[in-house]
Amino acid sequence: MTEPPRGVGRTEAIMRATLELGQEIGYAKLSIEAIAARAGAGKHTIYRRWPSKGALFLDSLLSLHKSDLDYPDTGDIFADLRTQVHAAIDLLGNPPFGPLYRALVGEAQYDPQIAAALNDRFIAPQADMTVARLKKAQDQGQLSPAFDVSLAMVILSGPLYFQFLVTQEPLTHEYVDRVLHALFTGMGKPS
Amino acid sequence: MTEPPRGVGRTEAIMRATLELGQEIGYAKLSIEAIAARAGAGKHTIYRRWPSKGALFLDSLLSLHKSDLDYPDTGDIFADLRTQVHAAIDLLGNPPFGPLYRALVGEAQYDPQIAAALNDRFIAPQADMTVARLKKAQDQGQLSPAFDVSLAMVILSGPLYFQFLVTQEPLTHEYVDRVLHALFTGMGKPS
Repeated sequence: MTEPPRGVGRTEAIMRATLELGQEIGYAKLSIEAIAARAGAGKHTIYRRWPSKGALFLDSLLSLHKSDLDYPDTGDIFADLRTQVHAAIDLLGNPPFGPLYRALVGEAQYDPQIAAALNDRFIAPQADMTVARLKKAQDQGQLSPAFDVSLAMVILSGPLYFQFLVTQEPLTHEYVDRVLHALFTGMGKPS
Repeated sequence: MTEPPRGVGRTEAIMRATLELGQEIGYAKLSIEAIAARAGAGKHTIYRRWPSKGALFLDSLLSLHKSDLDYPDTGDIFADLRTQVHAAIDLLGNPPFGPLYRALVGEAQYDPQIAAALNDRFIAPQADMTVARLKKAQDQGQLSPAFDVSLAMVILSGPLYFQFLVTQEPLTHEYVDRVLHALFTGMGKPS
């Protein structure tokens, strides 16, 4: 078998094959054998770089999102959060990322290494950006000084992930706009 | 093979075997064969009642929680929510319910029937109780009149599930107290 060129080209071919097969047959049925065959690569080539199917799948998935989840900063925190959350649900709520990401989070319920890698490489960087953007807005007087910005990621992402993973109802801009308004309003009585 | 008595006794024996084996070997490796053997029941007896491993697992799991997630109503909404959320994380964050429930939600990412059953039988009733309790508190002037109580379930549960399923950090009373305070405070500037 003629393998694709070494280096970036081969890595990309393997990740592309992973995503294609993942969409076609689902994560559960995906095998390193099938990925190797589709990519025209040897199994040993894959195992040299990725210790497990989960690790290869995570890398392949993250190659799809690039940096479209970087926070905008127009100076208007509500508008910027809205832009950010809309971008997040456009990614989560649609193929190819959505169904593949759903499978990855499913796998993270069984495999602690996948859960750790998901957090280190995807969730934690987003949380850091979210807290930094909100901290700046709070310093500029655009947020309640009493709001604990260190919780921003769980409070903003929680309702999206709950809908995505648990109720599995459609993630729409209208839904997340309502959530954002509710989070800004707060549950407590205005003092 | 002598099967356990028909009816409730046999159903309970099968569900108990499911939970025991689920804890011992994990959901992924669980099989109807092994459950039947442990319960001393025939496979056909199990399949007559449950169409799939997932359906049996869901029933078995829900038999653990009974009604300990019913909302208290002392007249103080913050205290009642705190009691409720503490009960929820004590259930989610500990064996036997926690790890088995994690596996079920993982399975719901692959199996739409499990996802639908989870919502119909566990999530939707909680959401209804949550909205009803908050609506009453709002009518009594204990919550912001501007807060959209129809979103109460996703906003309150989202941060718990995000921690449970995604970051997989420990669910502590201290954490959920901070979340509750942040949700009551709201992100927006006091008007």
